[in-house]
Amino acid sequence: MNNDSKPSASLDPADWSEFRALAHRAVDDAIDDLMSVRERPVWQPVPDEIVARFHRPLPASPQDPAAVYREFRDSIVPYGMGNTHPRFWAWYMGAGTAFGALGDYLAAMLNPNMGGGNHVANHVEAQVVDWCKEIVGLPRDASGLLVSGGSMANFVGLAVARNATSSVDVRAEGVRALPALPVFYASIEVHSCIQKAIELLGLGSRALRKVPVDAAYRVDVGALQAMIAADRAAGLAPCCIIGSAGTINTGSVDDLGGLADLCERERLWFHVDGAIGAVLAMSPLHRGLVAGIERADSVALDLHKWLQVPFEAGCALIRDRQLHRGTFALTPEYLEHTERGLASGPLWFSEYGLQLSRGFRALKVWMSFKEHGRDRYAQLIDRTIGQAKALAALVERTPGFELVAPVVINIVCFRYNPGGLDAEQLNSLNEELLIRVHESGIAAPSYTTLGGRYCLRAAIANHRTEDRDLEIFVEEVRRIAGELA
Amino acid sequence: MNNDSKPSASLDPADWSEFRALAHRAVDDAIDDLMSVRERPVWQPVPDEIVARFHRPLPASPQDPAAVYREFRDSIVPYGMGNTHPRFWAWYMGAGTAFGALGDYLAAMLNPNMGGGNHVANHVEAQVVDWCKEIVGLPRDASGLLVSGGSMANFVGLAVARNATSSVDVRAEGVRALPALPVFYASIEVHSCIQKAIELLGLGSRALRKVPVDAAYRVDVGALQAMIAADRAAGLAPCCIIGSAGTINTGSVDDLGGLADLCERERLWFHVDGAIGAVLAMSPLHRGLVAGIERADSVALDLHKWLQVPFEAGCALIRDRQLHRGTFALTPEYLEHTERGLASGPLWFSEYGLQLSRGFRALKVWMSFKEHGRDRYAQLIDRTIGQAKALAALVERTPGFELVAPVVINIVCFRYNPGGLDAEQLNSLNEELLIRVHESGIAAPSYTTLGGRYCLRAAIANHRTEDRDLEIFVEEVRRIAGELA
Repeated sequence: MNNDSKPSASLDPADWSEFRALAHRAVDDAIDDLMSVRERPVWQPVPDEIVARFHRPLPASPQDPAAVYREFRDSIVPYGMGNTHPRFWAWYMGAGTAFGALGDYLAAMLNPNMGGGNHVANHVEAQVVDWCKEIVGLPRDASGLLVSGGSMANFVGLAVARNATSSVDVRAEGVRALPALPVFYASIEVHSCIQKAIELLGLGSRALRKVPVDAAYRVDVGALQAMIAADRAAGLAPCCIIGSAGTINTGSVDDLGGLADLCERERLWFHVDGAIGAVLAMSPLHRGLVAGIERADSVALDLHKWLQVPFEAGCALIRDRQLHRGTFALTPEYLEHTERGLASGPLWFSEYGLQLSRGFRALKVWMSFKEHGRDRYAQLIDRTIGQAKALAALVERTPGFELVAPVVINIVCFRYNPGGLDAEQLNSLNEELLIRVHESGIAAPSYTTLGGRYCLRAAIANHRTEDRDLEIFVEEVRRIAGELA
Repeated sequence: MNNDSKPSASLDPADWSEFRALAHRAVDDAIDDLMSVRERPVWQPVPDEIVARFHRPLPASPQDPAAVYREFRDSIVPYGMGNTHPRFWAWYMGAGTAFGALGDYLAAMLNPNMGGGNHVANHVEAQVVDWCKEIVGLPRDASGLLVSGGSMANFVGLAVARNATSSVDVRAEGVRALPALPVFYASIEVHSCIQKAIELLGLGSRALRKVPVDAAYRVDVGALQAMIAADRAAGLAPCCIIGSAGTINTGSVDDLGGLADLCERERLWFHVDGAIGAVLAMSPLHRGLVAGIERADSVALDLHKWLQVPFEAGCALIRDRQLHRGTFALTPEYLEHTERGLASGPLWFSEYGLQLSRGFRALKVWMSFKEHGRDRYAQLIDRTIGQAKALAALVERTPGFELVAPVVINIVCFRYNPGGLDAEQLNSLNEELLIRVHESGIAAPSYTTLGGRYCLRAAIANHRTEDRDLEIFVEEVRRIAGELA
C-alpha cells in the first residue's frame, strides 16, 4: 500500500515513509522550540483570528497529515501557556521534560490499556507506585495507582476514607444509611479539590470543617482537637483529618507528626494531600518538613509538579490494600480472572480507582525516575527552595515591595506597597501589576489573596529557572510598578 | 553546556544532540514495530525474569537516557497487551494510530495545563468538544469536556444528574439531606462503571435499579415504566434513566427514542452511556441505531475505542451548561478570572470536571479528526460491523460452533458446543479454549457469560483487522477445539 494513492483500509498512514519523515520533522521542531524557549516571551495573548480557526464544523474528508501538522505549527505552537519557559511560576506546575514527552510518544505507540490483564506495562506501573511508597515511607505492601493528578489522588484517598470508616456498607446502602454525618477536617488553606471530592462523594461541603491556621499558615492542632470534641458532643461522626504537605497559597506544611498523633488518639483516618510537598521526602535537607507523612493512611502526590513529568501524572497511595480494593473493585476477590492467557495476572488497576481504560502514563514516570534518580530530584528541590528564598530576599531589599507570607518551600507571595494607599487601592494596583507583567512576556507569576491582601505569587517549581531569572523578574516588576505609580 | 560532562542544572538533556539522536531512533523503532505488527504474535506471557526487573528500589543516581531506552526496548516492548495487532478483539479497545501517538508527543512537549487560563490549547479542546456535540446531535450551546474515558464521562454525567434533579443543595448538604432516595435506572446489561459512579456519588448501589432486557439484550421499556411507578408509590424519588448505546457484552443498543419519551413523560434526567456506540451517529448507514441520543441530557462517549485515538480520550457532554458548571465549579460565576493576561479567558475546564491539572489530550483528538474526517470513521464503523457479521456467519457455518447472541454492531459472542456436554462442562471447555487461543498468539478475543453460558467474545473495534483475519481466527479456534475434544 506504501506507494499507492488509494487510501489504506486501516487508519494507518497511506504512505509510511511520508509519515516517518513528518514524525522526524515534528521531533526536531519540538526539540528546537525547547532549546530556544528562553528567547521567546513567556506568554502572549491568543489573537482573535487564531481563536476563530477553532470554531469550525467537524471535518468531513480526510486531510493530509502534513497539512494538519502545518496548522498545528501555525495556530497552536506560538500561543502556549508558557510553563516550559524558565520564568513561568504561575499556580504550581512543572515545566515538563523532553525525555518524559518521548515517554508519552512511546506509550501511545504501544497503546496498552492499563485497566488490567497480563502484560508488562502493568508491572511498570507497579514499579513506579513502589517507588512512590518508598519516597513517602509507606510500607512495601501498601497499595496505590497512578492517576491524572492531585485532584484524583485526593478523591481516591477520601473515597477509601469514607468507606473504611463507615459502620454500614456504604457501597450498597449509600451515605444516607449512616447513623451520623461523617466529618472531615482540614485547614482553611486546604486545596479546593478536597472540598470538590467531599461534595462529589455525596457528603456535602458541610461535612468538611475548615480549621484555623497559625501565623505560618499551618493548621492549628489545638483548635482542630476542640472541633473534633465539639462534633462528637453534637452526635456527629468525625472520621478523617487531612494534612497539607505544601499548601497552594503559601507552601506551608502542616505538622504531620502532630496530626498523626491526633488521628491515633481519636481513631481517625489520616490523609495527606502531598500534591505539592510529598516529594520533599526525597531531599535529605528538607525531608524533616514532612516528617509524619509515613504514618498516613492515604497520601496524594503529584509527579507532574516538582518532579517535572509531563501532564498528567499523579499517584494515590493507600496503606491498606484491602480497604483500597474494597472501595473500587466490582469483581469479588474470590472471582479470579483467568488462570493463564491475556486475562490473567495479579495487576488489575481498574479495581483500585475510577477508570477502567487507563493509559500507560507509568512509562514516562519510569523513564524520568531512571533518567534523573532521586539525587537529581533532591538537588532540584533544594535549588528551587533556595531560589524562592533568594527571591524573597530580593523582594525585601526592593523599595516599595513587601513579602506577604513567610517562605517555607518554593512559593513567594509579595506585593507592591508604595505607601499612602488604602487596602482596596493596593489590591487594584497589584492586580494591574500582575496583568502587565504577564503582558510584558518577561515572567508569569500568578496571584492569591492572603488576609484580604492581593499579592503576586511565584511558585518556583520550574527546573529551568536560573538565579539570574529572579533578578530579571524583580527588575521588570519594579519597572512596571514605577509606571503604575 | 552541550559539550560539557558536568550535568546541567535543569533536568533538560545534558547533551541535546545526543537526545535528538535518541528521539529519532525511538521514533523509527516504534514505526518499524507498528509496520511489522502483523508478523508478531498477538500476545505472549511475560517471563518471570522480566517481571523481576520491575521490583527494584528507587534509582538513586541518574542513568544515561540511552541506557534507559535500551531497557525499554528489551524489557517492555516485547510483552505488550497486543491491542495494536490486527487480530486483537478483547474487551473493547481501539488499536491506536501513529499520528495520534505523535499528537501525544507534541502535547507533552508543549505541556500546557488545561485546567484553565488564556492559551490556545483550551480552544483546541473546545473545538473537539464541539465536534463531539455535532456527532451526537446536541445543540451548539451544550457543554462538555474531554476526560480519561467512558468511566469518567459517565461519572460526570451522573454527578450532574444527581445534583440537577435534587430538591436541596446537594453540594452543601449532601445526599443525606434529600427527602427521598434518588433512583437511577439502567438495564441489567449496563456497564459496571455506572454502578461504580453511583456508589462513589454516595447514593449506594441500591439506588441503581437493574431493568430486565428483551431477547436482543435491550432494556425492557415496559418493565422500566412499571419499576418507576412502583418506586414512586413507595415514596422514592426516580431521577434518571441511563440508556446504553452499545452494551459491553453484546453491543445491543437500547431504544433511545423510547427512553427519551419516557424521561419526558416522567420528568427524569436522560443519560446515555455511548462509550461504545455513540459514534454510530457518524455513519449514515448505522446512525438509525442510536436515534434519540440527541435528546439526552448527558452523554458519555469514548474516542479511544472505535475512533482509535490512543489512550486516554473520552468525552462528557451535558446539555445544560449551567447545571454542568454548577456541579463542579468552586469559583462563583460572578467572580471573574483576571480581565487580561494569562489568567483570563472564557475556558476553564477545571470548573466542569474533577481534575484541576489536565493534559492536552485534545491535541491528538484534533489531529485525528482532521486526519481521517467523519467519512473515514464512518467507513471504519461500517466495515467493522460488516466484519462482525461475516465472523458470525463463519461461526454459524462451522460445525460444533454456535452464536450465543445476535450481532447488532461489532461484537460477536459464540462458543464451542460439540454436543453431549452439560452446562458446566461446556463452560470449562470454552474457558480452556479461550486461554489456548491467547497462548497460540494467533488472536485475542475475550469472554463473557450470557444466561449462564460462557462464551468467547470478539469485539472488532480494530482498524487493522482485515477480512482474512477472521478466517485465520476461526481456523485456529477450530484447530484448538479439535485438540480439546
